[in-house]
Amino acid sequence: MTEERIVTAALLVIGDEILSGRTKDRNIGTVAEHLTNIGVRLKEVRVVPDEESEIVLAVNALRARFTYVFTTGGIGPTHDDITADSIGKAFGIPVGIDARAEKILRDYYDAKGLEVTPARLRMARLPADAELIDNPVSVAPGFRVANVIVMAGVPNIMQAMLEGVTPSLETGAKLLSVTIPVDRPESEIAEILSAHQQRFSDVAMGSYPLLRNGRHASDLVLRCSDPARLEEAALTLKAALSL
Amino acid sequence: MTEERIVTAALLVIGDEILSGRTKDRNIGTVAEHLTNIGVRLKEVRVVPDEESEIVLAVNALRARFTYVFTTGGIGPTHDDITADSIGKAFGIPVGIDARAEKILRDYYDAKGLEVTPARLRMARLPADAELIDNPVSVAPGFRVANVIVMAGVPNIMQAMLEGVTPSLETGAKLLSVTIPVDRPESEIAEILSAHQQRFSDVAMGSYPLLRNGRHASDLVLRCSDPARLEEAALTLKAALSL
Repeated sequence: MTEERIVTAALLVIGDEILSGRTKDRNIGTVAEHLTNIGVRLKEVRVVPDEESEIVLAVNALRARFTYVFTTGGIGPTHDDITADSIGKAFGIPVGIDARAEKILRDYYDAKGLEVTPARLRMARLPADAELIDNPVSVAPGFRVANVIVMAGVPNIMQAMLEGVTPSLETGAKLLSVTIPVDRPESEIAEILSAHQQRFSDVAMGSYPLLRNGRHASDLVLRCSDPARLEEAALTLKAALSL
Repeated sequence: MTEERIVTAALLVIGDEILSGRTKDRNIGTVAEHLTNIGVRLKEVRVVPDEESEIVLAVNALRARFTYVFTTGGIGPTHDDITADSIGKAFGIPVGIDARAEKILRDYYDAKGLEVTPARLRMARLPADAELIDNPVSVAPGFRVANVIVMAGVPNIMQAMLEGVTPSLETGAKLLSVTIPVDRPESEIAEILSAHQQRFSDVAMGSYPLLRNGRHASDLVLRCSDPARLEEAALTLKAALSL
């Protein structure tokens, strides 16, 4: 078993519309699944309103604790899109029109015969020296400052940016998982599960209740970065459950 | 215009399965919509893993800042259900078998001819003097300690608990909203919107891009607790947009 570094992340969802319930978030699940698949452990998610002080507070709390912080939302052309300014403030970095981003936007709008209005140019407002993140869907780029990766809130644009930034991420020990479906309610297998959790302290064991064919059942999920150890724990647990 | 108190809330989602992407959260949207409808403003959401230190940290940060903290998840019978113990720790309150909760569980299992195992009894483990929250779906209660309301993670049980606890909540000025659909991209109406936001500083104005009939369009959302002021802002903005 090789020792690999544990790479962690937090996701910060920026948007009044999620907190009001008007828009149902679809990014948390996508980011969670993607990061798990590439060997980055999502350790916390926060949803905050479109308020600079709240965004700054959350960014600074999260970037100090985790390898990466991903944000979604607030990078469009309207006055309520304040993510770039908030990130600048969190880092103490000046924010202004970025020449590279401006060129991308001007080329795009010129080709369409559209005017580059101040609102459109607002999407080129970035913290100084930010790395740009390509937006293959609608051009206006995301960006990265240190360990903070700023993405759009619109799900298909967010996904494209996440895919685009992935090759540049450091990844670590991938958390593998095995699901053991059990046709008994949680309360009937809890003691066996708990005993096995104690025996295999390096394998995280979770239990999730569900209805299967109309009856109370459980999914036991075992997680570990070592495949041999995970298999051993799963086989031992299955045997104890007579599966 | 009467001055009403602003009542705020945070939601704390407890669960490794959300952070791994295995389970897609469905409670955030439900809680957000419900609280908005009853006049409680959801100001922050956090998702944390099944780790006591993380839960304690989040509960204490949130309960100090908001009128209410709602939690979901981690109140079942298995070893990974650690919400009750974590809430006890956050408040410095001892946790043990609650006689009222134990009676509810014993009555239920006795009627079904099932044994009250230690795992089942674990669902009666509560912080001392917690208020019980009725669980009409599967009996094991939620609970409330001071301003922290602890609910199940299974969506239909969570919803039943949320409905049940609602009459006991203080509610405040309800944030009303008007959506103005505009068949133009955000970047073309951003300046008008921004000017109106400045003029109506008490009406929060948000803009959300979308595709309508295959074309870039916007939904403008105005929010205010004063219906007359909201209507005035909406009419003025519509006129400026020639709608």
